[in-house]
Amino acid sequence: MGKGRLEAFSDGVIAIIITIMVLEMKPPHGERFDDLLSVVPVFLSYILSFVYVGIYWNNHHHMLHATHKVTGFVLWANLHWLFWLSLFPFASAWMGESHFATNPTAVYGLVLFMAAVAYFVLQFALIAAEGQNSLLKQALGRDWKGKASLALYCLAIGLAFLSPWLAQSIYILVAIMWLVPDRRIERAIMEREAT
Amino acid sequence: MGKGRLEAFSDGVIAIIITIMVLEMKPPHGERFDDLLSVVPVFLSYILSFVYVGIYWNNHHHMLHATHKVTGFVLWANLHWLFWLSLFPFASAWMGESHFATNPTAVYGLVLFMAAVAYFVLQFALIAAEGQNSLLKQALGRDWKGKASLALYCLAIGLAFLSPWLAQSIYILVAIMWLVPDRRIERAIMEREAT
Amino acid sequence: MGKGRLEAFSDGVIAIIITIMVLEMKPPHGERFDDLLSVVPVFLSYILSFVYVGIYWNNHHHMLHATHKVTGFVLWANLHWLFWLSLFPFASAWMGESHFATNPTAVYGLVLFMAAVAYFVLQFALIAAEGQNSLLKQALGRDWKGKASLALYCLAIGLAFLSPWLAQSIYILVAIMWLVPDRRIERAIMEREAT
Amino acid sequence: MGKGRLEAFSDGVIAIIITIMVLEMKPPHGERFDDLLSVVPVFLSYILSFVYVGIYWNNHHHMLHATHKVTGFVLWANLHWLFWLSLFPFASAWMGESHFATNPTAVYGLVLFMAAVAYFVLQFALIAAEGQNSLLKQALGRDWKGKASLALYCLAIGLAFLSPWLAQSIYILVAIMWLVPDRRIERAIMEREAT
Repeated sequence: MGKGRLEAFSDGVIAIIITIMVLEMKPPHGERFDDLLSVVPVFLSYILSFVYVGIYWNNHHHMLHATHKVTGFVLWANLHWLFWLSLFPFASAWMGESHFATNPTAVYGLVLFMAAVAYFVLQFALIAAEGQNSLLKQALGRDWKGKASLALYCLAIGLAFLSPWLAQSIYILVAIMWLVPDRRIERAIMEREAT
Repeated sequence: MGKGRLEAFSDGVIAIIITIMVLEMKPPHGERFDDLLSVVPVFLSYILSFVYVGIYWNNHHHMLHATHKVTGFVLWANLHWLFWLSLFPFASAWMGESHFATNPTAVYGLVLFMAAVAYFVLQFALIAAEGQNSLLKQALGRDWKGKASLALYCLAIGLAFLSPWLAQSIYILVAIMWLVPDRRIERAIMEREAT
Repeated sequence: MGKGRLEAFSDGVIAIIITIMVLEMKPPHGERFDDLLSVVPVFLSYILSFVYVGIYWNNHHHMLHATHKVTGFVLWANLHWLFWLSLFPFASAWMGESHFATNPTAVYGLVLFMAAVAYFVLQFALIAAEGQNSLLKQALGRDWKGKASLALYCLAIGLAFLSPWLAQSIYILVAIMWLVPDRRIERAIMEREAT
Repeated sequence: MGKGRLEAFSDGVIAIIITIMVLEMKPPHGERFDDLLSVVPVFLSYILSFVYVGIYWNNHHHMLHATHKVTGFVLWANLHWLFWLSLFPFASAWMGESHFATNPTAVYGLVLFMAAVAYFVLQFALIAAEGQNSLLKQALGRDWKGKASLALYCLAIGLAFLSPWLAQSIYILVAIMWLVPDRRIERAIMEREAT
């Protein structure tokens, strides 16, 4: 079974998720700039979620590029990961509308954490299909970035109850960590081609 | 006529259905965990519907993989099936918002039943296009799983009026029955390649 | 310039149009079957619009199958047609929510009419790109079905002010007329291959 | 890394943006033509935004057609551009619902301006990947149209505080300027093929 339709379906779902989040930003009723202020928290929350979904799309794109086999386990691991991504609009809107209150910030972290766990499971499913000597396995290496993210999300969920802004800072930090280009997969492809 | 655009269109519609269901889960107005409780029934309903749509996408993916011809009958049978799938967000939201009350649970079962009937019609249209000796016909065999699902949906609709929880249990049971990998089509492809 | 991306974009827009129409069907607040009755007019309106969008997708699929060149005029004629299709959810919801009242029924007919005009323009743009001896030109012939539809939409808009049900009957009649398979393009392809 | 998935993802997001804007046009509660009048400003705003998103899709289509390499910078420049496009439904709805008031008109201009800046960055990223002697670089030439648009958006934002209608006129003028076919890329492709 080819990976083309898996990519197309994932792209469709991710494109919809990233776009419907903006629907949570309702145009204000008044026409003054002050009226626009009420939308600012939801807008900031939207930016953060847009970046996260963008990072995931980017990494998913690279990861599938390095794989060839699509098993039933891969299909379901992919759907499971999309399920958690699909909760971003909800978690993002709740966090924004509550002006980054404690509980919504912690729940947002939980959704980030579960999406990351689901991404781990998807990686595992792909490596199981490809084999331990596969390009993907080599490219990921010890995957310290993935593991560090999980730990940081846990930390952020805990810190949210002290101060939501600490949690927000960690969410931003993890996003920046992933925005810095991750050349593992590209490098592994090049190395293999060189030998 | 190729099947590529049929697959792409179906994937698009299914991706949108699976994603807009989450829009029925409105972020609560308060910021306490208690406020989140009001969303729980819609969330549970969303999980069930997500799994069902995921199963259908998966099976559709496999079924079209084993076919080659797309006739006018196939195009319309596919659209008819997508029509019933498109009612999942409505039925799912009504069931969740009513906290799994009797009538919404029965209507949800009716939508499941009609989607399954439409899937039967689509299978029939594909086999009519492919021929009785086709890979698809062989792969499906007697299709006891499809027939058992129809019977179970009928049973669940009836039982919903005794107790909605009995109906819910059957919906979950049928979903699990389909989640267990169905190797019929994959096996038939392999057998044919072996001979 | 290839037609692949034009098809993909059109499929995306059509898939979204056909699916978001269902969002106009809000789950009722009560849990009785009586509460469901309030949704029935929107549901009937949804079925009609679903069939129309399905017919257009089907015909668009066939028409692009018989063409090869995509010019700037074709791109914009296609977007113009998608614009009128995008008004279906609005017109459909207004007609359903007003329980098929006179004015919404006439406006629905106007949207049907404009979408048909835009489809004519798109056909014209494609034939202009392909040439008068093209497969598409031959396949369409005098296009009596397209012209009859335009006349019937006009008639229906006028009759809506006498009785909306007359207009509805014409909308259903035109839909049935198009559901009967249109073999012109398929036949023209076969004839050309035979010579 | 191929550009196919970048195109597909962008098409998906653009298709959703162009379609969900229509969701801001709520069907009126009454059934008279007078009730429809309340929707007219949002409808006009929708037309303008539809044309802008259509122009962008068209130009993006051409631009990617002339490129071959997709780097990490290109992926993020593309996502950044889609981010600003995703604010069109919000800005468009606010402008329409406020009946083209001063501040919403200026904010709409700001979103147009930022989308144009992001498109510049995307062009820069693509040229950086392709090289200064690339087809794309030649095709764009001095890009006076892009630069003039930026200047006109700035002018419009300023003029909005004098009279929103001046700003609206400039938005329409820029749209017309882009609707006139831009043959730079097509011509450059032909010239290169001729040599």
